[in-house]
Amino acid sequence: MESPKANTSHHQVEIAMETEVHRVVAPPHRSTLQKLQTRLKETFFPDDPLRQFKDKSWKIKLLLGAHYIFPILEWGPKYSLKLLKSDIVSGLTIASLAIPQGISYAKLANLPPIVGLYSSFVPPLIYAVLGSSRDLAVGPVSIASLIMGSMLRQEVSPVNDPILFLQLAFSSTFFAGIFQSSLGFLRLGFIIDFLSKATLIGFMAGAAIIVSLQQLKSLLGITHFTKQMGMVPVMSSVFHNTHEWSWQTILMGFCFLVFLLFTRHISMRKPKLFWVSAGAPLLSVILSTLLVFAFKAQNHGISVIGKLQEGLNPPSWNMLHFHGSYLGLVIKTGLVTGIISLTEGIAVGRTFAALKNYQVDGNKEMIAIGLMNIVGSSTSCYVTTGAFSRSAVNHNAGCKTAVSNIIMAVTVMVTLLFLMPLFQYTPNVVLGAIIVTAVVGLIDVPAACQIWKIDKFDFFVMLCAFLGVLFISVQDGLAIAVGISIFKILLQITRPKTVMLGNIPGSDIYRDLHHYKEAVSVPGFLILSIEAPINFANSTYLKERTTRWIEEYESSSDDENAKKKSGLKFVVLDLSAVSAIDTNGVSFIKDLRMVLEKKNLELVLVNPLGEVIEKLQRADDAKELARPDSLFLTVGEAVASLLPTIKTQSSNYV
Amino acid sequence: MESPKANTSHHQVEIAMETEVHRVVAPPHRSTLQKLQTRLKETFFPDDPLRQFKDKSWKIKLLLGAHYIFPILEWGPKYSLKLLKSDIVSGLTIASLAIPQGISYAKLANLPPIVGLYSSFVPPLIYAVLGSSRDLAVGPVSIASLIMGSMLRQEVSPVNDPILFLQLAFSSTFFAGIFQSSLGFLRLGFIIDFLSKATLIGFMAGAAIIVSLQQLKSLLGITHFTKQMGMVPVMSSVFHNTHEWSWQTILMGFCFLVFLLFTRHISMRKPKLFWVSAGAPLLSVILSTLLVFAFKAQNHGISVIGKLQEGLNPPSWNMLHFHGSYLGLVIKTGLVTGIISLTEGIAVGRTFAALKNYQVDGNKEMIAIGLMNIVGSSTSCYVTTGAFSRSAVNHNAGCKTAVSNIIMAVTVMVTLLFLMPLFQYTPNVVLGAIIVTAVVGLIDVPAACQIWKIDKFDFFVMLCAFLGVLFISVQDGLAIAVGISIFKILLQITRPKTVMLGNIPGSDIYRDLHHYKEAVSVPGFLILSIEAPINFANSTYLKERTTRWIEEYESSSDDENAKKKSGLKFVVLDLSAVSAIDTNGVSFIKDLRMVLEKKNLELVLVNPLGEVIEKLQRADDAKELARPDSLFLTVGEAVASLLPTIKTQSSNYV
Repeated sequence: MESPKANTSHHQVEIAMETEVHRVVAPPHRSTLQKLQTRLKETFFPDDPLRQFKDKSWKIKLLLGAHYIFPILEWGPKYSLKLLKSDIVSGLTIASLAIPQGISYAKLANLPPIVGLYSSFVPPLIYAVLGSSRDLAVGPVSIASLIMGSMLRQEVSPVNDPILFLQLAFSSTFFAGIFQSSLGFLRLGFIIDFLSKATLIGFMAGAAIIVSLQQLKSLLGITHFTKQMGMVPVMSSVFHNTHEWSWQTILMGFCFLVFLLFTRHISMRKPKLFWVSAGAPLLSVILSTLLVFAFKAQNHGISVIGKLQEGLNPPSWNMLHFHGSYLGLVIKTGLVTGIISLTEGIAVGRTFAALKNYQVDGNKEMIAIGLMNIVGSSTSCYVTTGAFSRSAVNHNAGCKTAVSNIIMAVTVMVTLLFLMPLFQYTPNVVLGAIIVTAVVGLIDVPAACQIWKIDKFDFFVMLCAFLGVLFISVQDGLAIAVGISIFKILLQITRPKTVMLGNIPGSDIYRDLHHYKEAVSVPGFLILSIEAPINFANSTYLKERTTRWIEEYESSSDDENAKKKSGLKFVVLDLSAVSAIDTNGVSFIKDLRMVLEKKNLELVLVNPLGEVIEKLQRADDAKELARPDSLFLTVGEAVASLLPTIKTQSSNYV
Repeated sequence: MESPKANTSHHQVEIAMETEVHRVVAPPHRSTLQKLQTRLKETFFPDDPLRQFKDKSWKIKLLLGAHYIFPILEWGPKYSLKLLKSDIVSGLTIASLAIPQGISYAKLANLPPIVGLYSSFVPPLIYAVLGSSRDLAVGPVSIASLIMGSMLRQEVSPVNDPILFLQLAFSSTFFAGIFQSSLGFLRLGFIIDFLSKATLIGFMAGAAIIVSLQQLKSLLGITHFTKQMGMVPVMSSVFHNTHEWSWQTILMGFCFLVFLLFTRHISMRKPKLFWVSAGAPLLSVILSTLLVFAFKAQNHGISVIGKLQEGLNPPSWNMLHFHGSYLGLVIKTGLVTGIISLTEGIAVGRTFAALKNYQVDGNKEMIAIGLMNIVGSSTSCYVTTGAFSRSAVNHNAGCKTAVSNIIMAVTVMVTLLFLMPLFQYTPNVVLGAIIVTAVVGLIDVPAACQIWKIDKFDFFVMLCAFLGVLFISVQDGLAIAVGISIFKILLQITRPKTVMLGNIPGSDIYRDLHHYKEAVSVPGFLILSIEAPINFANSTYLKERTTRWIEEYESSSDDENAKKKSGLKFVVLDLSAVSAIDTNGVSFIKDLRMVLEKKNLELVLVNPLGEVIEKLQRADDAKELARPDSLFLTVGEAVASLLPTIKTQSSNYV
């Protein structure tokens, strides 16, 4: 550190250099209504969706509007045979994945397997018309299936009361759709932002383990399995039923699991070989079905799907429940599965849009996904969204437009109409292996390591989500993680950082004294920077903290012999980072001014932003806070202007 | 605005002036544990209560510790006869107020009147030993009494089941005390900061009206009164029972109400005449009691208190309920009344401490108030705290120390032992008038106007609290207002301000272009300042918003002829106001860099703070983000260093 003397002389040079002091002015006047308008626009329309409509003729506006609502009208007319070729290839590829996954995920949700196929037929068609992503492959997904199954199973048994269970599933899907599309219509899409990356990584990993554990039922061939989802009851159920383990099932499951994991490994190493892992599930289903059929294995302890009904989706609007004692359960389930599946769908859409450099409008996607679920709920489909694994395969297979979804839907339709008897001998164990392979990819260890490296608190949030899902319940784990994330933000507001600034020698830059070791404090000045909006949640803390800064400053100069000369004269508050203030914040500044006056110190404000300066002026009838000699545009100018007054005073002492 | 040419030439001058560019460095290394320690200390011990213990001998530490726990040990030995004189005057004054208020507030809480007197005897003694405020006058208060009465009455009738009701009141008081002192012990006092000034003003005004409306029962002499608290049921109850109105009661009530309001008015105009309003309630009680006694008015439609038991507080620990079906109710009531009475007590203590320039330790006060309620609950007292009106009288009467509380307690003791029969003929109507006069002062219209002037949103919060209390319920109104306040903070985080900066000519200062009209943008640079921590809740928004800024910038230069020359080259992010960042925020910056690279733009970061720079460095394996030519300490230096590269390029075009 330099000696105070060198400091002072340095500032003399600086003052000589400063020719003018810049005035702080209030921002241009705007009425409360205008401000409210701007605020609402920034809150609900940050992407300004009507930008393209500006200065256009009436006809073009109508056309753009139709394009906006039905993106298919935009790309449809330009569609070509070349694009169709690519889309047929990718569509058939995802269909080969969709059929076994549809059956498996429906079982995960405790629903009849055929509902999984129904759900891969109608929703993709709807999405192709309304959706704006070119890569999203639509269908049921593991996490949403798991959550729906586990939440409904808490109150209704899918075994004893299958019809009621199915009704509740369709009703939940309906409410999920309503919820999703309202989020989009009301432009409240930012609600899904509250699921941070850390939360999602922890949640997905936990859910993947929960899902995999559930598959132990089919993989080990246990018939009496617990109905709970938690890790502890499942493990105890597995080891209390060892007498039910079937070696034939275990052997078969093990072989197919190894095969599927191996194909997955190949495709991950070489993305060009995507078809290896994409085709493997269907191949496994075919192989295992043939094996069972050939050896009559269903009589040797291997459980099979059984007879499936042929035909397309029957209507199901008469099965929706809008009254009665299960309404609360259905709404809650719809809300949770809706938000979870929305998060997956939007994230997947955004990821691939960024890769191909096009835009996906989040709120519009929510409406599309929501409508798809509303229609789905009345055509025997349960919750669907853009699935991550399926969309990745779609992308790798070279899809160009949403037509690949249509191709997939047609393939599923053909299956539903003619091929259902073929699945009669498909063993459940192979479906279990398919699910395990699909969800294992959700455990993202490198991302977890990266989070540990960057931010320990985020890692803690991740861990809470993970352990919460494993040991409490899927939805509670998620709620805990979101709660902790929000609590952290509130804590940051409640305890904002205040740092002491010092001058970087040879410049008029002022920076944190603890961060920049070369920075030196200016004698007679305590320069504090407040790094958060000042509001009710932190004004008391800031008052205490500022008082302590002043006391520490005064007591630290106690020991120095130059106390008199370097005695504190000015407390400079740098408000550059104070983006907002409320009435409590204004009181804090007024009170601080009073307290400082009693101590014979002067409060100097630096660079209050537009809103802050306006509120201070309105609150301050005597214009005390906005006096030109206590309000500056930069810390440098404040120090340069006020330093001479200290020198005059101290030379008077001498 | 200046022409771009003038701009450019100005910057040439500036570059000539700049002799060196300051490096951005990471802050000194500290381990995660050290950071956690600092963070925890700032969160829970912002006032550093152990400061005074530093570098002291073992004995002095012990002495200071005893002083810390029992402030009476600090001021007790210095106590003098002169101080005692002042304290006796003020103690007797507040006792004359405490006796009628105690009886009235107990009735407000649906408790026997004598409980109000008990509550003015034990708690003040406890507070005198433990409390650190010199002005706080302790006793029951209107709002807490109202809330306790209304919450308990929802489940138990005080008329049909008075013993159970009393038990629940004592148990609630016990839990309120436990809750208050744990907040203090766990240093979680900042929780009461979430009740903002606006919330409190709206809440108090609403509660004052609710309380006053309840007094219509005694003021009009109605016997069949509704048991609900809301404005609507009370008013309908009043006008459906007009046949029960008693003109004698109304006349008497009106006279005393006018008298009390008049004395209040006098004392407010001339604070020296504080004793006029302080003595008026006792005088009213004495006068009205004599009137009733003389005219045997109890037989003419005027209801009186009736016989009161003589004697000191009986023990009540055997009446505490820790089990059974009412435990939830009792804990909830304790929590709400505890936090409300704590808020009043702490606010009052801080207000008078600021006036007399001494410190009150919030967490310590919470422990004192909490212990006072725990002890109170086992000696037949209900919730007490530092009362605003009573403390103001105490302060005006010249109290010096907590001895005035002891004097008050002794006076109440004498009353309890010998004077109880005198209250037999006290009419209820006069108690109603005393309550109305006391709570009318809680309606703070000037403060509401001031809030309207400064911050419209705070006014909205105030209005929600006010209307919520009036039309829904006391606790729901409060909860709604707190919820909205927190939602506002979250919204500020979710939609942080980003502003475009421009250069203030003749300086290297950069400020908001919309705020400072003289600021001009630098051709080739888009300079954005982000004014909030970057985290999961806003990273998606910031990405969209930044992209839009860039698109707007590019489309606006479409029209200009100088497009090629002023084409965008650098996007400068001023991170001075970004006080924290999480993994989502780090991803935002990495993604933004990638997006800009695709557009052939360069991302330049300016002045990232300690935590931000550390996290960016840890996340950034290729050291792309921390390259010296894209990281600067000030916007001025960034522009000065990078402007020459643009010029070279554009002269190549020519």
